[in-house]
Amino acid sequence: MTVKNAFYAQSGGVTSVINASACGVIETVRKNKDKIGNVLAGKNGIIGALTEELIDTNQESDADIAALRYTPSGAFGSCRYKLKGLEENRREYERLIEIFKAHDIGYFFYNGGNDSADTCFKMSQLSEQMGYPLQAVHVPKTVDNDLPITDNTPGFGSVAKYIAVSSLEASFDVRSMSKTSTKVFVIEVMGRHAGWIAAAGGLLDDHGIPVIILFPEVEFDKERFLAAVKAKVEKFDYCTIVVSEGCHWPDGKFLAEQGTRDAFGHAQLGGAAPVVANMVKEALGYKFHWAVADYLQRAARHLGSKTDVEHAYAMGKAAVEYALEGHNAIMPTINRTSNSPYAWEVGKADLKDVANVEKFMPKEFITEDGYGITQACKEYLYPLIEGEDYPSYEKGMPKYVTLKNILVPKKVATEFEVK
Amino acid sequence: MTVKNAFYAQSGGVTSVINASACGVIETVRKNKDKIGNVLAGKNGIIGALTEELIDTNQESDADIAALRYTPSGAFGSCRYKLKGLEENRREYERLIEIFKAHDIGYFFYNGGNDSADTCFKMSQLSEQMGYPLQAVHVPKTVDNDLPITDNTPGFGSVAKYIAVSSLEASFDVRSMSKTSTKVFVIEVMGRHAGWIAAAGGLLDDHGIPVIILFPEVEFDKERFLAAVKAKVEKFDYCTIVVSEGCHWPDGKFLAEQGTRDAFGHAQLGGAAPVVANMVKEALGYKFHWAVADYLQRAARHLGSKTDVEHAYAMGKAAVEYALEGHNAIMPTINRTSNSPYAWEVGKADLKDVANVEKFMPKEFITEDGYGITQACKEYLYPLIEGEDYPSYEKGMPKYVTLKNILVPKKVATEFEVK
Repeated sequence: MTVKNAFYAQSGGVTSVINASACGVIETVRKNKDKIGNVLAGKNGIIGALTEELIDTNQESDADIAALRYTPSGAFGSCRYKLKGLEENRREYERLIEIFKAHDIGYFFYNGGNDSADTCFKMSQLSEQMGYPLQAVHVPKTVDNDLPITDNTPGFGSVAKYIAVSSLEASFDVRSMSKTSTKVFVIEVMGRHAGWIAAAGGLLDDHGIPVIILFPEVEFDKERFLAAVKAKVEKFDYCTIVVSEGCHWPDGKFLAEQGTRDAFGHAQLGGAAPVVANMVKEALGYKFHWAVADYLQRAARHLGSKTDVEHAYAMGKAAVEYALEGHNAIMPTINRTSNSPYAWEVGKADLKDVANVEKFMPKEFITEDGYGITQACKEYLYPLIEGEDYPSYEKGMPKYVTLKNILVPKKVATEFEVK
Repeated sequence: MTVKNAFYAQSGGVTSVINASACGVIETVRKNKDKIGNVLAGKNGIIGALTEELIDTNQESDADIAALRYTPSGAFGSCRYKLKGLEENRREYERLIEIFKAHDIGYFFYNGGNDSADTCFKMSQLSEQMGYPLQAVHVPKTVDNDLPITDNTPGFGSVAKYIAVSSLEASFDVRSMSKTSTKVFVIEVMGRHAGWIAAAGGLLDDHGIPVIILFPEVEFDKERFLAAVKAKVEKFDYCTIVVSEGCHWPDGKFLAEQGTRDAFGHAQLGGAAPVVANMVKEALGYKFHWAVADYLQRAARHLGSKTDVEHAYAMGKAAVEYALEGHNAIMPTINRTSNSPYAWEVGKADLKDVANVEKFMPKEFITEDGYGITQACKEYLYPLIEGEDYPSYEKGMPKYVTLKNILVPKKVATEFEVK
């Protein structure tokens, strides 16, 4: 058996634990030096393979690779770039093969979400169709938690913890001031299609906080919503609203696309939170505050969920181990075997069943009124936010690693235009 | 010496460590039972004194009082309510005296910022003018860090740490995606008049992050700002912008008051971040993301600064000790004696020198171009964000305490209208 190199790339929006998966991949390869050679990481994801910008991870120390476990973002750079089908874009696939051949790459580890699972699946097909031997294994990642088959997706648990904790803290703040100040606090969270992140706000219910969740899965009904806010404020004197960026009207238009214009009449790209907050103010007159967590939520490694970090590492490790067992066109999965105490094991799914399938919140996880989460949802969520896994600090700041990211010398060296 | 009770109230915007000061006050009183009786806390701040809603802190267990050290927000409720001058509003002062007399209150501990220092000062004057013996001691608190004389104000160190860490994490995120995605990330932070919180973003400079700070102390110059952004993006491929909510045009108008209107022509109360982000997009075409941290920043006890928590506790403790020494009309202060290693001691200031004085960023803390912080500023900031002081967790969530907040029986029991 010849020792082939592995290609690893990060794809799409990064998370606070995608580097923990990279750590799992690289450390597992390092433990199997007799079977896999170097891990060449794509600079800026798959683009690095197309442009032959391959990072030589052997130049990184064991300590720096270990530090990836605690470092948010994509250490090698990520990209939003989706390969088209083999028929439509043979040029790119041929280029990838040319590069992989030149660098003796026999393993393709792609760390991403839905779109990336599709790309990874195409790469596995390539192996047969173009007669180039390649084992393609997808490493699951997405804060959106919308990958099918796997119980949850690394990246989600940490953002869920961040949103639950931050919303709890802000709600305590509002509760203590509502007598003379803010009565309604709105926090906007990620999730354009699936409301998993917003659902984490529903855990506040267990802390006595009046909370209304606006899911993308539930069409927005202004009158009903305002009535719900009014009821909460009249009962508790305040209310917290967690609005998903994907919250939309019955016609599909996002709340954020409210037709807001600046002083010059230019359309403003706004958030859903200010729209909801202004709506409440106008109809009910309550003083409000709003926050848009944006990247803070998916980058917040300082509050990473221990469970999530462990999942992320395990998925990277399992990807390598499955590849060594000869598997192709698969994705390792997290299989939950018990809620309490939480227990899980590593499984695997065929990529053809994963690619381009989105997992939405099941109906039984959303309360009948559409504004909260059920007990079943809480039991699903709690294990995923369980445990803390703090980075170490120096001078008050977390010690996040920035890798050297030295490229291996080019062997093909022809220019390739990434369109 | 008769044993008098103490009145304690939280005032104005709460912080993640104001309860640590409350903890310092109550624990110190409990250690001096022979000198001070019960701590009666105002429900919703000073309003609780006016309405005779006084919380009996003796009903709270030692464990719950200790837990205050780790709990953000105002445990007894706070309010935005400023007492007018004695001449203008004799009615309120007479009411306060009536209540204090009835409950045998001889100590007035007021935990707040500038406005509250003024109220506390007035209460101390009351002692003389109305012939009612009362020792008024102000316990400093404000995320804005704009109280004079004290080196820094409890609440600030933790929000500074939060902004520095969160901005660092988001910048790592942007850096790893800038090739094909976001190039400019804007985060809006608190600080309507003073740019202390925004300054914390300047620490990113020491982590190799290209960052531009927009201070309230520096008049906004659109062309110069856009040129600065362009220069950063051309050099680094991305840029982080930390904008203070108080950032304003030369005519004093806030950036946030951009005349933004919704689809119906209603004025929108927006944030400065989307205004800045849209400005960059329009002029330079860069893809952007923006976040508004709002209450998340001042409530983020999960990331509290250990130094800040210690300061907060010490100020509460010192307030009681100074009162026991017979002091009146003072505020305990934090006196820095060394930057590195950081050393400080407790001092005190006369309230007449504190009330209504705002401390802005000194000129020598802002770089010449107005967009960054100097080495002197960094040396000032680092000790204040130093150290972590995590709350304990249960089921993935921090264990924040909610007190019983049982009121003492009313003794005056007449109605009083709070206007």
